[in-house]
Amino acid sequence: MEFASDNTAMVHPAILAALSAANAGTAASYGADDWTRRAMARLEEVFETRIRGFLVGTGTAANALALSAIASPVGTVLCHGEAHINTDECGAPELLTGGAKLTPVEGTGCKVDVDTLDGALRPFVRGFHQQAPQAVSITQATELGMIYEVEEVAAIGAFCRARGLRLHMDGARFANALVSTGASAADLTWKAGVDVMSFGATKNGAMGVEAVVFFDTALAEAFEYRVKRSGHVVSKGRFLGAQMLAYLEGDLWLANARRANAMAHRLAGGLEAVAGVRLALPVQANEVFAIFPVRLHGRLQASGAHYYDWPGERIGDDGPRAGEVLVRLVTSFATRPEEIDNLLAHARAEAA
Amino acid sequence: MEFASDNTAMVHPAILAALSAANAGTAASYGADDWTRRAMARLEEVFETRIRGFLVGTGTAANALALSAIASPVGTVLCHGEAHINTDECGAPELLTGGAKLTPVEGTGCKVDVDTLDGALRPFVRGFHQQAPQAVSITQATELGMIYEVEEVAAIGAFCRARGLRLHMDGARFANALVSTGASAADLTWKAGVDVMSFGATKNGAMGVEAVVFFDTALAEAFEYRVKRSGHVVSKGRFLGAQMLAYLEGDLWLANARRANAMAHRLAGGLEAVAGVRLALPVQANEVFAIFPVRLHGRLQASGAHYYDWPGERIGDDGPRAGEVLVRLVTSFATRPEEIDNLLAHARAEAA
Amino acid sequence: MEFASDNTAMVHPAILAALSAANAGTAASYGADDWTRRAMARLEEVFETRIRGFLVGTGTAANALALSAIASPVGTVLCHGEAHINTDECGAPELLTGGAKLTPVEGTGCKVDVDTLDGALRPFVRGFHQQAPQAVSITQATELGMIYEVEEVAAIGAFCRARGLRLHMDGARFANALVSTGASAADLTWKAGVDVMSFGATKNGAMGVEAVVFFDTALAEAFEYRVKRSGHVVSKGRFLGAQMLAYLEGDLWLANARRANAMAHRLAGGLEAVAGVRLALPVQANEVFAIFPVRLHGRLQASGAHYYDWPGERIGDDGPRAGEVLVRLVTSFATRPEEIDNLLAHARAEAA
Amino acid sequence: MEFASDNTAMVHPAILAALSAANAGTAASYGADDWTRRAMARLEEVFETRIRGFLVGTGTAANALALSAIASPVGTVLCHGEAHINTDECGAPELLTGGAKLTPVEGTGCKVDVDTLDGALRPFVRGFHQQAPQAVSITQATELGMIYEVEEVAAIGAFCRARGLRLHMDGARFANALVSTGASAADLTWKAGVDVMSFGATKNGAMGVEAVVFFDTALAEAFEYRVKRSGHVVSKGRFLGAQMLAYLEGDLWLANARRANAMAHRLAGGLEAVAGVRLALPVQANEVFAIFPVRLHGRLQASGAHYYDWPGERIGDDGPRAGEVLVRLVTSFATRPEEIDNLLAHARAEAA
Repeated sequence: MEFASDNTAMVHPAILAALSAANAGTAASYGADDWTRRAMARLEEVFETRIRGFLVGTGTAANALALSAIASPVGTVLCHGEAHINTDECGAPELLTGGAKLTPVEGTGCKVDVDTLDGALRPFVRGFHQQAPQAVSITQATELGMIYEVEEVAAIGAFCRARGLRLHMDGARFANALVSTGASAADLTWKAGVDVMSFGATKNGAMGVEAVVFFDTALAEAFEYRVKRSGHVVSKGRFLGAQMLAYLEGDLWLANARRANAMAHRLAGGLEAVAGVRLALPVQANEVFAIFPVRLHGRLQASGAHYYDWPGERIGDDGPRAGEVLVRLVTSFATRPEEIDNLLAHARAEAA
Repeated sequence: MEFASDNTAMVHPAILAALSAANAGTAASYGADDWTRRAMARLEEVFETRIRGFLVGTGTAANALALSAIASPVGTVLCHGEAHINTDECGAPELLTGGAKLTPVEGTGCKVDVDTLDGALRPFVRGFHQQAPQAVSITQATELGMIYEVEEVAAIGAFCRARGLRLHMDGARFANALVSTGASAADLTWKAGVDVMSFGATKNGAMGVEAVVFFDTALAEAFEYRVKRSGHVVSKGRFLGAQMLAYLEGDLWLANARRANAMAHRLAGGLEAVAGVRLALPVQANEVFAIFPVRLHGRLQASGAHYYDWPGERIGDDGPRAGEVLVRLVTSFATRPEEIDNLLAHARAEAA
Repeated sequence: MEFASDNTAMVHPAILAALSAANAGTAASYGADDWTRRAMARLEEVFETRIRGFLVGTGTAANALALSAIASPVGTVLCHGEAHINTDECGAPELLTGGAKLTPVEGTGCKVDVDTLDGALRPFVRGFHQQAPQAVSITQATELGMIYEVEEVAAIGAFCRARGLRLHMDGARFANALVSTGASAADLTWKAGVDVMSFGATKNGAMGVEAVVFFDTALAEAFEYRVKRSGHVVSKGRFLGAQMLAYLEGDLWLANARRANAMAHRLAGGLEAVAGVRLALPVQANEVFAIFPVRLHGRLQASGAHYYDWPGERIGDDGPRAGEVLVRLVTSFATRPEEIDNLLAHARAEAA
Repeated sequence: MEFASDNTAMVHPAILAALSAANAGTAASYGADDWTRRAMARLEEVFETRIRGFLVGTGTAANALALSAIASPVGTVLCHGEAHINTDECGAPELLTGGAKLTPVEGTGCKVDVDTLDGALRPFVRGFHQQAPQAVSITQATELGMIYEVEEVAAIGAFCRARGLRLHMDGARFANALVSTGASAADLTWKAGVDVMSFGATKNGAMGVEAVVFFDTALAEAFEYRVKRSGHVVSKGRFLGAQMLAYLEGDLWLANARRANAMAHRLAGGLEAVAGVRLALPVQANEVFAIFPVRLHGRLQASGAHYYDWPGERIGDDGPRAGEVLVRLVTSFATRPEEIDNLLAHARAEAA
């Protein structure tokens, strides 16, 4: 009954097999290998455009490095106050941008929109006394499992263009969002105004690889220096390339995401039927945010269910009341229906 | 005929197998997994002491992070002018220490000693106008393939203690050096005064894992924050742990290093017998620095031999003369005798 | 009618005279001069304790450097969201701390308290994924002209001690706050738990000098390196020392602050009597925050009154309504009663 | 007998008077005042071209900020190994550029030339493994008191253009160099290829002001943010402006420099005639580097002469021998002939 994170999941067998297959003979190091080259070509097919892409080993690196290409040390990046880059990366964006500030923006479900962005920009009237707004970062799907529809991204993209801001998408769970919207990868990103994205694979079946994908390829100038300088150029780069290639091959990434999302819906549907439990937010990707009676929460954890309680105030007015707790349950491509049924059975038994 | 780098080599089959074996079910993320825990225990056995260890994906990260624990932004780290940290990491040490400077020290074979260190310290008499000497970093084996014997490390260690300096060892090729000296891992490191080391595995058979090993465990305080902040905390950490565990298991690391060194000796021995070729330095680990006639060099490269020419001035007075070129040939655990024999045959034929 | 800022004021004649007096013969550079030494001794008298003090030329430098002594690159400093360090220093605290984050805390009048600090600490439960809370910074008087009474500082000081946090006071307008409370400088700072403060002089009569004052002198270790590294060690340091000495001599600083505060009260009293005008906040130091009808505001500015409108949302529920605007008027030691009477006459005439 | 530094000198009376004259009424803060505006206009006359200029309080700030406009965090700046920016600014250039490295270049008298620059560039063949050469910085006059003639600057300027490098001039003693060459300020800077310079005034009569002067004005974009972010925007900016204006007014700066240089020549001429003393370098600006018998050195210092001994190895082959010491004596506009004669009398007496 593992619902703590999509990070605790195993590697998809096809990706593991690709690592073995790549392990033959010598290969150019530092990303100059054939696997990486082919992964880049495949990314261009996926996004239906020319890109500049860079593979790194962690999502934090992908985000912070991507931001370093669009925000200067005297700039600021607008993002939701609860964005991963602002609350879970220990200052990596600030470090790798050389000092850009993150300006928190409000919004329910960890989503920002044109209105809250506009409000966040309002105080920037004092010139060089403040760091200059240079970019916006949105998370797709958000830290509360919500997705931005194509129109929503496009509205933000248009806003950014009008204000001279660059747009970054933290796509650690991009696949989950993409299959949820039903849109094309192109429509949901560069056609909607995204300049650079962190294209996640690790949470969705890879061992450890994320791509920084530049749609505005001019932004990628000298980017390899930034990757190296932060220690993220991998010497045996073929094994990043092979992962990404296998991830994209045969649309494994989309199949994995569909499965993870389906498991989340199954879990959410079952939980809603449990007395005393309610969903805090609709399920749109592979995360379920539910409100549990504290007693039920204790019993479930005691019975071996792994998931996290979450700060209730993030939900807003419909958050947990006295005697309740907000919880987050995450599914992945590897989640088995039996685990869900097992958890639901426990929940029903406790609630009865 | 691949002698460009030990980075171009494949992963040792036992390590790859360990990745597959670790890929079962869920595991705690961010390094809290069982494989990592066991790898740490094994490192403590190897070094015969209590350590604090951290696994990261690249050698540059290991070095720069290790230095961040012993040098402050207003400090300087003394290292050989040709040290990897000074010439091949694109400023990662400066970035991750928050601004510590690297002070170049002289020495043949990329080795520093007490005398050259002492000389490098001499200009530091102007207090806060200069960054303060805080640490020394040595590379074992050096960038020119030379090793520090136990006594040499110990002399530097004693010097550091006397001057209030911390001692870091860049051990990207530590295994190769260790088997060459015949010393114990403990004798060659903490017993000789090393405070923290970068313990390499990638060049010697792993896919991509290095350990930052603190012998002075107090230095490791809050180190995990530094790892995270630079984007080097891996979410599916079990796959770093599994690599390191397999690397150490059954002393695979030592066997690999012995084999790589033996291949280097075989290669060097053969080259010495080729007319017009001479060794620029004795072979002490898994790198051969030789001086080739330019014409031979061109022919060998044309025939498919992969290796790099190297800046001749690094050798000093015995470097290449007119019509000659300094070259570096690197062997690894995966180097096959046939490759060597093939290269030697080509060389002999060309030289004839 | 100059009420834009206490930064637009001239230098107090006694301080200017001190610069002339100091301009005789040669003097040791870089702060090793006699004037600086005597200023430090005088600061120790003022604060009735042993201190380590450093003179710099700007308030931003004083704040950012002070914070660099109590917050590490992986730490965070809690401060009011509208604190000068968070909104008006263009990222200097982040730069000079090497990357510490600022965590915004709520509170009316730009004041934080134990409750809002406690609330701001609550999300810090995820270990190395977040920067670690290490310090609190409060502004005395605040950016909205409010003061912390001794008991309020002491409560925050006790909270910090209990949580292992260091306490910084941004005292750009410390003199104004001090005379307003009637407390001793010691009671309002180190006796209440302040570890380090920025002791302002520029806004209160100096040409350009601020002191970083360490009450916990151990924190000052190697601080001069940080000052130098940021370019804030002044070569002809006697002229910083002479300013600070004259500022403290004969309690000029207190006399200046009393006068500035008195002018603010005179101005506020007059404004309250103008139809349609109301005070947004009580006057506690040398700043008046008032709410003007938009029409009156326009007329006053047209007639040559210099002051700024201010973001109304900072006041909270009692802020400006439709047709109104929040304004800030600042007085200084140099404000003349005639300027105030002139402004009030204009205001009364317009409002009539 | 003060020859320790031009930093120990007083402020020129005309500049001090200008501060008093500027101290009337209110003035716009943060550099928007009239004095600063006029100083900028005067700088444009001096350099006979359109510039963007910024006034800061220290030479270290001017240098580090200037470099931040021409070198990125992944770049490197070539400069003489003994350049002030490399040895006397405690890492300020690295801090304010966000991490650019300084690459030491060789050359006698602390001067670099096209050949030594070319040699220093040679190792940069490994792409992103090394920080990319982006700029050259030269000091005029150098740290050993030598000057670059117009042709020498122009040769370096042409080299930089050809290699895509920007050229910075550290002109802490620019006035002394300028009057020594007899060239125009334009010829010695932008016409010779200098993109940005640090234009010093403090060592030559000001209290504390230096200008960052951009000849390529596009480089100044957003520069005020960088100045602010490092804490170098002064609130009462008129007092920086007034200093610079008075410094330039009536060519006071040139008169001061001529006087300082003349004093250096008088001193050098006298020393040469002292038995056992010889000049280590020709006198070209306001610094005398001489070689003293150790015994004479001790006696002079005991008799109250202030000057520094200097690392002898910087001179090269003609440096001090056993029983000798290299010393630096600096003159300024305020040096009185009597001081020189006094020192010479002591020296002659001791040497006799």
